[in-house]
Amino acid sequence: MSAPTEIEKKFLVIECPALDDFKAEVVRQGYITSGEDSIEVRVRQKGQGYYITVKSKGTLARSEYETAIELAQFETLWPATEGRRLEKTRYTGALPGGAAVELDIFEGHLAGLQLVEVEFSSVEEAKAFKAPSWFGADVTEDKRYKNSALSVADQLPT
Amino acid sequence: MSAPTEIEKKFLVIECPALDDFKAEVVRQGYITSGEDSIEVRVRQKGQGYYITVKSKGTLARSEYETAIELAQFETLWPATEGRRLEKTRYTGALPGGAAVELDIFEGHLAGLQLVEVEFSSVEEAKAFKAPSWFGADVTEDKRYKNSALSVADQLPT
Repeated sequence: MSAPTEIEKKFLVIECPALDDFKAEVVRQGYITSGEDSIEVRVRQKGQGYYITVKSKGTLARSEYETAIELAQFETLWPATEGRRLEKTRYTGALPGGAAVELDIFEGHLAGLQLVEVEFSSVEEAKAFKAPSWFGADVTEDKRYKNSALSVADQLPT
Repeated sequence: MSAPTEIEKKFLVIECPALDDFKAEVVRQGYITSGEDSIEVRVRQKGQGYYITVKSKGTLARSEYETAIELAQFETLWPATEGRRLEKTRYTGALPGGAAVELDIFEGHLAGLQLVEVEFSSVEEAKAFKAPSWFGADVTEDKRYKNSALSVADQLPT
């Protein structure tokens, strides 16, 4: 299964808003491959679901393959990700204007980090986006905030 | 699940013996990662069973993780192995002396290659082994005959 193209922006969070209307779920993910490898293989828990995802790292024609796995399969492969993991609670909801957002509150070695991603349906919509005042810096292009980089970070990016 | 330590020797086959008493099954395997990556991730069909296996490549304390997967999961991940695959029929049986052997007859880009592996229960047994006359060169230490190398070989090793 190939993933659809996503148009997203990622921001730091200055002050976390009230999340009463958001859906919360645990996200745990670990990388089986290392950051230097040509292929990224990730296992992930998202709420009650478990997945394995393969991404090629080419800049042209990146391929992605993902399949749901059983808890027992996840538990067999999870030890292979030691030292390359992250855990967060993901809050899914919408901004007042209707844009879908995912707010991640990280735990463990990344405690204190909060990131918010906004999804857009077109490039035009992304360009026209006015961030709410609780949004911090736009880190969409900052590789240090990629999940794969955060998973092996010694400390939070500064 | 960690794999037990295996003591094996691998040989070319000069002349394939009668295989009437051997069990035959299709083995198809492909590598999700490339040969230069630090981790090997393999998906495999063995008869009616499907598996994903992760091996670290360190020389010390190599770890291995393997779990059975469903056919649908295999079929989702298989396209990620394009260009790094091999197919063979594996014949499993025993030598007259009782040693367990696996004789692989390769297909596709490796057609013409036959390899036989003997499993031993101790290092002493392996050292004392006298190969039958139909065995060819001992290629146990020849990296060109590793499955991962054969999967990407342009032609048969000579």
